Amino acid sequence: METTLYGKIANQIIGQIRAGIFKPGEKLPSVRSLSRKRSVSISTILTAYGILEDQGLVEVRPKSGYYVRRVPVHEHRPPAISQRTSVPRKVATPQRVMEVMRDSSSPQFISFAAALPGTDFPVIHQLKRIFARVIRSAPFLGIGYDSPKGSEPLRRQVARRALDAGILCSPEEIITTAGCQSAIGLCLRALTSAGDIIAVETPCYYGLLQQIEAYGLKAIEIPSDAERGMSIDALRLAFEQWPIKVVLSIPSYSNPLGALMPSQHKQQLVSLIEQYDVPMIEDDIYGELGYQDRRPPAVKSFDRHGRVLLCSSTSKTLEPQLGVGWVIPGRYQEQIEYQKFINSVSISRLPQLAVAEMLDHGGYDRHLRLARESYRQRRDRLIDLVGQYFPGETRISRPQGGFVAWIQLPRGASALQLYLDAREEGILISPGELFSANSGKYQSSIRLTYSDAWTASRIEAVKTLGELVARQL
Amino acid sequence: METTLYGKIANQIIGQIRAGIFKPGEKLPSVRSLSRKRSVSISTILTAYGILEDQGLVEVRPKSGYYVRRVPVHEHRPPAISQRTSVPRKVATPQRVMEVMRDSSSPQFISFAAALPGTDFPVIHQLKRIFARVIRSAPFLGIGYDSPKGSEPLRRQVARRALDAGILCSPEEIITTAGCQSAIGLCLRALTSAGDIIAVETPCYYGLLQQIEAYGLKAIEIPSDAERGMSIDALRLAFEQWPIKVVLSIPSYSNPLGALMPSQHKQQLVSLIEQYDVPMIEDDIYGELGYQDRRPPAVKSFDRHGRVLLCSSTSKTLEPQLGVGWVIPGRYQEQIEYQKFINSVSISRLPQLAVAEMLDHGGYDRHLRLARESYRQRRDRLIDLVGQYFPGETRISRPQGGFVAWIQLPRGASALQLYLDAREEGILISPGELFSANSGKYQSSIRLTYSDAWTASRIEAVKTLGELVARQL
Repeated sequence: METTLYGKIANQIIGQIRAGIFKPGEKLPSVRSLSRKRSVSISTILTAYGILEDQGLVEVRPKSGYYVRRVPVHEHRPPAISQRTSVPRKVATPQRVMEVMRDSSSPQFISFAAALPGTDFPVIHQLKRIFARVIRSAPFLGIGYDSPKGSEPLRRQVARRALDAGILCSPEEIITTAGCQSAIGLCLRALTSAGDIIAVETPCYYGLLQQIEAYGLKAIEIPSDAERGMSIDALRLAFEQWPIKVVLSIPSYSNPLGALMPSQHKQQLVSLIEQYDVPMIEDDIYGELGYQDRRPPAVKSFDRHGRVLLCSSTSKTLEPQLGVGWVIPGRYQEQIEYQKFINSVSISRLPQLAVAEMLDHGGYDRHLRLARESYRQRRDRLIDLVGQYFPGETRISRPQGGFVAWIQLPRGASALQLYLDAREEGILISPGELFSANSGKYQSSIRLTYSDAWTASRIEAVKTLGELVARQL
Repeated sequence: METTLYGKIANQIIGQIRAGIFKPGEKLPSVRSLSRKRSVSISTILTAYGILEDQGLVEVRPKSGYYVRRVPVHEHRPPAISQRTSVPRKVATPQRVMEVMRDSSSPQFISFAAALPGTDFPVIHQLKRIFARVIRSAPFLGIGYDSPKGSEPLRRQVARRALDAGILCSPEEIITTAGCQSAIGLCLRALTSAGDIIAVETPCYYGLLQQIEAYGLKAIEIPSDAERGMSIDALRLAFEQWPIKVVLSIPSYSNPLGALMPSQHKQQLVSLIEQYDVPMIEDDIYGELGYQDRRPPAVKSFDRHGRVLLCSSTSKTLEPQLGVGWVIPGRYQEQIEYQKFINSVSISRLPQLAVAEMLDHGGYDRHLRLARESYRQRRDRLIDLVGQYFPGETRISRPQGGFVAWIQLPRGASALQLYLDAREEGILISPGELFSANSGKYQSSIRLTYSDAWTASRIEAVKTLGELVARQL
């Protein structure tokens, strides 16, 4: 690196950061000013900053510039994730999930549990106005069932936005659903039979594990890194050992880690499923919630043969109550359409038209910019607060998008005990055991959702959580 | 019968009808006037009319009185239904269903295919106003997920109305869903595993057969009568022969026959499932659309041990686009709640609140009265038109509720050919083969939906259908 011009510049900036000239959270010189100062091209500076970004030393903030990455008070360390691929196993879904969900819908708790978007954005009011407008102007009742594919205006908008993720498809190649979870269910039912093995990342969002269990499938948990997501090497090994039927993953800002699979890995993943002729269900629900300027390409953007089924919804970007999602099912179009029909005959037109309107000219991009910037700041605050109030050995993931973080408590602390103690204090968290088919796993990890604004009582709640952990040690 | 007073009166009226004194469709003397004229008690007259009703000679019209039943030009005969119980078999779902559904959503066809409610009722405008009001006044966005059971105001209304069907349950014992089809899917997934045998009536609504197929289950088809629905004797025999896991039926105004299972049979059905300790899924979607004054009791009203799971929705009574249904799952509450959570996390609050409002004080009962009376008249018109335009050997069911009728074409006519020929003429019907797991069955039967007003072009379309059948003979 030292021999190239951009390598030299990158090294100089590293030196400046180490020397404390630029402190964590501080803005670095703009690309333009640095280019002028050093008399080198803009692209040389961009390459240098790109290297620093890859090394996790700096980060880009949309419409602002490059910043030194923040590190919590004790040095930030990502959680250590098990590197062992488990054997395929039936999922024993903890009743705990239902308990947490029931509590979540009660306003008496301060909740860090359910992965819901923040509720303080003006988009809520915009959506209400759009609903009122659609009800006045568009026929949504007395029109019989919609086409089995779903409402055309929504499919058109989804096709348009899919381009940002590198996917070229027509509205006819999209099927709308009652949400992302529902879309994934249709895919699993179309692609698998009882006893089949599904490869998932670990830790894995419990909603996916529950579906796997409900359909009588087995999960094989592929080790995942808090920064780069599912390990492609481990997945390759698993393919060699087991007759994997489907790969199911959240490659862009995974839940619960917040990991972003690098584009190169996404490409390798596609090669792998092509080699083994296996479909992949890509849960892209957080794909538009990255903290970078451009959204990352979807795995599906590398898919030339229609083996990737991309599922998403507006539950994380806008509002879960919309109940609107979709799937871009590639070569499995007909099977998915049929499964949708069986499951629900058809889904309602009203929310589909409202979402289409929102995506078309409802200021969706403006909302996304605001949400992404807010979530980035709220993540930083969470990392600071955990650093401040949790025992020193605590580790926390540093999501590059979405709004959930994974926290590994110090050795000896029990996440389940923390969950129970916190609930007594009126605070909800998700204990780590929910995120694995193997109930012995993640007994000292928790997931915290940081989408909501940091009010005094939420800050106080993090302090309480930290104290409850400390009390265990 | 002749020796009793009411038997004598009944016989006299039969004589008057035979003599043409009261013609088909004509109103008979009111109970009160006849009681005065004959100097007998009201209850004697009611019993006499009851006997005539049982014999299918007269019918009651709500708020009006007793009428001589209409008979088509050639004497009305209900379709002959196979009396043989088939062996359990895997369902081979015809692609035809998807074809019919795709066509149905296109306005270029005159459709008698999809079982959609009429669209000429003022309730559509009422619902729009209610939606607008709910959007203005009730929080439906930014509230996270609803409770896993669904919105409380809707559950309260459903519990209130369940009383009319003889069911006493609390709102806590109800789970809302995205529709009736969706509710039945949750029940099947909770109660069965691949390979299990499900008892259904035959002919059977194809949506149920498709779900059975999709979950890898087997259907055993129990002979059903066009007037009284599933044969309890045949079901008992099937129980003796096969390890039936679930009974799935539409006991009140079945689809496609329009049959109403007598209350006594409903009671026997409950005894049978208790004896064999098997759950029953009761599809009650047409239960409130009877042409009698009072809605019939649900099978669930006889269920003392929670084995009946009643599923319904507002798709037939109000509007399929509402996407709102529910299940009263009895002892299976926890499993169904869990299945709902897995399937969709939660369903949208907006349509649930709108439907709750409609049921509470939106004039739902007024709408039901209008719809039931309209459907009764439209059924009479269909029977007349089929009598007028179809070949003389044609038989048609005489539904006592709902809005679909089953037609048996003359020997030698092919329903599939009729479907194809009609489609060429821009007319959609449902061919009989869709209504059995055994594709050889019902090859000369069709289902016609009669919910829409009889416009000149719809009348013309029935004439065309009749001509197409005649051309085949």
